[in-house]
Amino acid sequence: MPAELLKGKPLADKIKAEVAKEVEELKAKGVAPSLVAVQVGENEASRVYTNAQRKNAEQCGIKYELQELPADTTQEQLLKHIAGLNADPNVTGIILQMPLPQHIDAKVCQWSIAYEKDVEGVTPTNMGLVTFGKPRLVPCTAMGAFELIKSTGVDLYGKEVVVVGHSDIVGKPAALLLLNSFGTTTICHIATGQRGMTESHVRRAEILVVAVGVPHLIKGEWIKEGAIVIDIGINPTKDGKILGDVETEAAAERAAWITPVPGGAGTATTAILMRNTVEAAKWQMEKRS
Amino acid sequence: MPAELLKGKPLADKIKAEVAKEVEELKAKGVAPSLVAVQVGENEASRVYTNAQRKNAEQCGIKYELQELPADTTQEQLLKHIAGLNADPNVTGIILQMPLPQHIDAKVCQWSIAYEKDVEGVTPTNMGLVTFGKPRLVPCTAMGAFELIKSTGVDLYGKEVVVVGHSDIVGKPAALLLLNSFGTTTICHIATGQRGMTESHVRRAEILVVAVGVPHLIKGEWIKEGAIVIDIGINPTKDGKILGDVETEAAAERAAWITPVPGGAGTATTAILMRNTVEAAKWQMEKRS
Repeated sequence: MPAELLKGKPLADKIKAEVAKEVEELKAKGVAPSLVAVQVGENEASRVYTNAQRKNAEQCGIKYELQELPADTTQEQLLKHIAGLNADPNVTGIILQMPLPQHIDAKVCQWSIAYEKDVEGVTPTNMGLVTFGKPRLVPCTAMGAFELIKSTGVDLYGKEVVVVGHSDIVGKPAALLLLNSFGTTTICHIATGQRGMTESHVRRAEILVVAVGVPHLIKGEWIKEGAIVIDIGINPTKDGKILGDVETEAAAERAAWITPVPGGAGTATTAILMRNTVEAAKWQMEKRS
Repeated sequence: MPAELLKGKPLADKIKAEVAKEVEELKAKGVAPSLVAVQVGENEASRVYTNAQRKNAEQCGIKYELQELPADTTQEQLLKHIAGLNADPNVTGIILQMPLPQHIDAKVCQWSIAYEKDVEGVTPTNMGLVTFGKPRLVPCTAMGAFELIKSTGVDLYGKEVVVVGHSDIVGKPAALLLLNSFGTTTICHIATGQRGMTESHVRRAEILVVAVGVPHLIKGEWIKEGAIVIDIGINPTKDGKILGDVETEAAAERAAWITPVPGGAGTATTAILMRNTVEAAKWQMEKRS
């Protein structure tokens, strides 16, 4: 019995409709959510993201500005630029577009973003709130994965959860959201693979999230019957195909729910960024009152 | 073959000796680490901790002050008091003694502590740094557990790690420290037990950390041969004994290393609090320069 598909687009559309409504309500209260993306130097891949950000922002009635700084911007200049955005009451959300030039320490700059404007959830404060189970601004793709899982209606309490990949922007926050929903949560990564243990963990996963960027790392036959499978991998091949981190077709024969590749959790990322922008604006309102 | 004991006292003594040396060096630079513990209302259990804090601080040359506020202190008054300590350059570390009276929201007050003075590692910012694998001020008992594990010399890379208990002050930070050392890390909790899954996870644990407060929850026969077992449980019985969360005696027949109960990771907690106080003072120095 092939799995039901967990598509990101219906989730994204639902979120954007809710966000557009909230933006109207906020504007009626005199608060206009406004998103600034800072990019240092030219980057083709980045342009795909910033174009999507602009389009989504327009759909939601959120003001959007892309600020392009020259490639030779120093770290000190960038930190000063971010400090200016932090202090500007007309800016309610800040994105620091990755990658940054190599002479800049990305972490230092990301962590200088005011946490209540940190719409990508990259600051220690926001990650700490996720860890404590009091999330406010959560990394968008991790949140998309979590919401697709919740959309199945399956009770997470006591479920065997396995997350493959422990990145700061997807694996860790996704695992922590699932842990704080009382899943018994295992986090695997490169060392798990080198120990030859990935398969055994995946085989017992009732909920599986994979975010490693290795095409077809997870074999279809490893998937537990009836599992929920969220595949964040988007791996382009030489012959123009896009493969997930999971063997989608074979896995779909065993899973109850699975994300298509592409078109899964990642598809909701930018919509969640817009929702975070509204959440950030509300957080700043609270702090003022 | 009975396990080798992982005692907290030698670790505590080593840490205190190092801290005392560092305090002298800091004082020579004109920085005097100074710890303030705030307690609201009377509490017998708390007095055991604050007495230990004072004794450890004296041993390390750290100035220590216990500030006792009346039981009817309002949340607003307490927040104002903490704000005063945050702003005072002569205070380099702040402890908010638990429990607080019921009319006070403990989280709101803990989270109002300036993160660079948060020597117990209870603020979102410090927890986020732990999650990111860039720890600075880590909850003390979790750090004690981590250091006892490291003291075995066992390479954590790819090890099967199981943490039973997902509290914000022990289970989660211990799990994150081990994850960021590339253990394949599973976090179990009450829902795992209700699903009847605790035993199967414990049985495969090469490194096991238990912090739940349920006497003898973990059976000796579940322990994997050669495992490292860290038992944070300190459960007093009616007949005056103290039991761990693990059946220590039976577990010691299978484990390679195990903490005694009492006398394990918890015994190093206050020494690590002193080290955090020095680390906090250094962090504040950096921020000024």
